[in-house]
Amino acid sequence: MKLAAGIDIGGTNILLGLVNESGKILEQSSWKTSFFNNPETWVNNASNKLVEWLNQYPNACFMGVGIGAPNGNIHSGAIEHAPNMPWKGVVPLARMFQEKLSCQVLLTNDANAAALGEMLFGETKNCRNFLYITLGTGVGSGIVVDGKLVYGHDGFAGEIGHVILYPDGRPCGCGRKGCVETYCSATAIKTTYAEILKKKNLPENPTADAKNIYERAMASEESAIEAFEKTGEWLGLALANSVAYTSPEKIILFGGLAQAGKLLFEPLKKSFYQNLLFNYKKNNIQILPSKLPESDAALLGAASLILT
Amino acid sequence: MKLAAGIDIGGTNILLGLVNESGKILEQSSWKTSFFNNPETWVNNASNKLVEWLNQYPNACFMGVGIGAPNGNIHSGAIEHAPNMPWKGVVPLARMFQEKLSCQVLLTNDANAAALGEMLFGETKNCRNFLYITLGTGVGSGIVVDGKLVYGHDGFAGEIGHVILYPDGRPCGCGRKGCVETYCSATAIKTTYAEILKKKNLPENPTADAKNIYERAMASEESAIEAFEKTGEWLGLALANSVAYTSPEKIILFGGLAQAGKLLFEPLKKSFYQNLLFNYKKNNIQILPSKLPESDAALLGAASLILT
Repeated sequence: MKLAAGIDIGGTNILLGLVNESGKILEQSSWKTSFFNNPETWVNNASNKLVEWLNQYPNACFMGVGIGAPNGNIHSGAIEHAPNMPWKGVVPLARMFQEKLSCQVLLTNDANAAALGEMLFGETKNCRNFLYITLGTGVGSGIVVDGKLVYGHDGFAGEIGHVILYPDGRPCGCGRKGCVETYCSATAIKTTYAEILKKKNLPENPTADAKNIYERAMASEESAIEAFEKTGEWLGLALANSVAYTSPEKIILFGGLAQAGKLLFEPLKKSFYQNLLFNYKKNNIQILPSKLPESDAALLGAASLILT
Repeated sequence: MKLAAGIDIGGTNILLGLVNESGKILEQSSWKTSFFNNPETWVNNASNKLVEWLNQYPNACFMGVGIGAPNGNIHSGAIEHAPNMPWKGVVPLARMFQEKLSCQVLLTNDANAAALGEMLFGETKNCRNFLYITLGTGVGSGIVVDGKLVYGHDGFAGEIGHVILYPDGRPCGCGRKGCVETYCSATAIKTTYAEILKKKNLPENPTADAKNIYERAMASEESAIEAFEKTGEWLGLALANSVAYTSPEKIILFGGLAQAGKLLFEPLKKSFYQNLLFNYKKNNIQILPSKLPESDAALLGAASLILT
C-alpha cells in the first residue's frame, strides 16, 4: 500500500491527513492556525504526529508529503507572502519538513492541489485538459493542460480570480478593480445581494452570507434568486473567456457556491454559451461541481501532489 | 543537414519554403490563394515544387512538412471552417500532403506556428513559458507552457484575441462584443483613430490605415499619437489579464503594430504594470517585439512544427 501525507494550510485551520493511493483518508488531525506564532513549532507537532501514524503502517510505502497552501510556490516549496496567514514573509515549509522527515515534500497553492485531487480521485479522471475553480472567500483556480498542472515561469500561474472582468469595476482586495472574484466569490454574492436590495429600496440584510442567501433563494425570495442569477452570469462570462486560453474539456467548480445546483448552474451555463467563442461551442464543455466531498478535498488534493 | 518544408496559408497568399535546421530559408515560392478554387490543385503544385527542390539536396535529411493556417487544427491536421479562405468547410491538408509525399505533416494555426518559430530561432530561445501575440487584421496568439504549445482539448487553445475585454464593447467579427481584437488589432486602431477624430470634431480620414496612423503619429499628429496610446492601454490590460492564466516569462508581439516602438510600447507597458496582479510584478515580465523578420516568420514558424 502506498501512502502520502496531505497538509492543507488555511488562515483559520491546518489539516494533516494520511491518505492511501485509493484516496482513502486513513488518519487525520487539525490545528488552529492562530495557535502558532511561528511555523517551526507547528512543523514539529505535525512531523511527530505523522511519524506516530506511520508506525501503525509498518508495511506501507510512504511516498512523501504534499502541502496545499495560500500563495504556495511549487518551485521554491515556500508560502510566499500569503496575506491571510499569521506567518509572514517567505515560509519555506517544504524544506522544513524535509529536514524533519527526510522524504519528498511538494508544496503548491491550495487550488492547484485540489485540481490534482480531482484528477486523481474525482470528476476529471482521464481528463487531460480542464479548469478547476474554487468559489470561496475568493476565487482560486488550477489549470490542467495535457494532464499537467500549469505552474508557469514563477510557480504562480492560474489566478483566474484576479483576471479583470469589468475594468474599473468593484474594488478588489488585491488593490485593483473589477477582478473576477469581486463578482463570483461567496463574498461577492453578499455584495450583489445587498446591491439588489438597495436598488429595490428593500431593507438591508447585513447578516446574510452566501448560505443564507441560498436558503432565501430556495424559499423563493426574488432578490436572493436574482443574486444567484447575476453571479451565474458573471461567472459564465469569466469561464467563457478562460476557455479561449487553454480550451478545456471540463470546468470543475468547488466550494459552497458550487453546491447551489440549478440556482447557480442555470444562469451560469446560459451565460457561458452566450459568451463562448463559436469555435468552442461544438465541444460541449461540461461545467460540473466537484465530485469530492468538501471535507476531504483539501487533504486529497495535497496528498495527490505526491500520489500523482 | 536537416530540412523541413514550411507552408503558410493565408486568405490572400500561400507561401512554401524549404528551411534548414539553422532557420535559413533555402528556397521559397508563393501563390495567390484565390487562384485555387479547390485545395487539390494547389497541393499537387506545391508537392511537385517541393520534390523538385529536394532533388537539389540529395544529401540532406528531409524531416517533413509543417503548415500554419487559419483555424488549423493540430489534432485533425485540417483547416476547419476558416472564415477568410476560399476553401470552405474542413480541408484535411495534412492528410492530402501525406498521401502525396509519404512524410510527416503537421498543421496548426498560424499564430501557434509562429510561436514555435520564435522559440526555435527568435526571441524566446531557452524560454519555456511565453505568450506570442500577432497584431494583424485580427489578434492571434500562441501560448507556450513549460516548453510546449498549448493546444487544449480540441486543438484550438490560444484565442486571446477573442477574450472579451469590455463586455458589451465594440462589435467583433466573431458575432460577439468587446473582444480584445476589436481594441488591439491593426484594424482596431483605425476605429480608435476615427473615434478620436470624431470626438474632437475633426474631419474623418477614411483612408487612414495602421501604417498611415503610425506615420501621422511620427509626424506628431496628436490624434494619431492618442490612437496608439489607447491601443497600448487596452493591450496592456489584455496582456496583464493573460498573465494570470499561465504566468509567462516573456510576451512577444508580432506584426506591423509591434514595430511601432515607443508609440505603442510606452503606453502598453505602463498599462500592463498598472493592471498586473501584484504577485507577478516582481517577475519583470518582458514584452518584446518578435526578433524574426516579418517576411520570414510565417515560413520559419511552419517549418518549426517539424524541426522542434
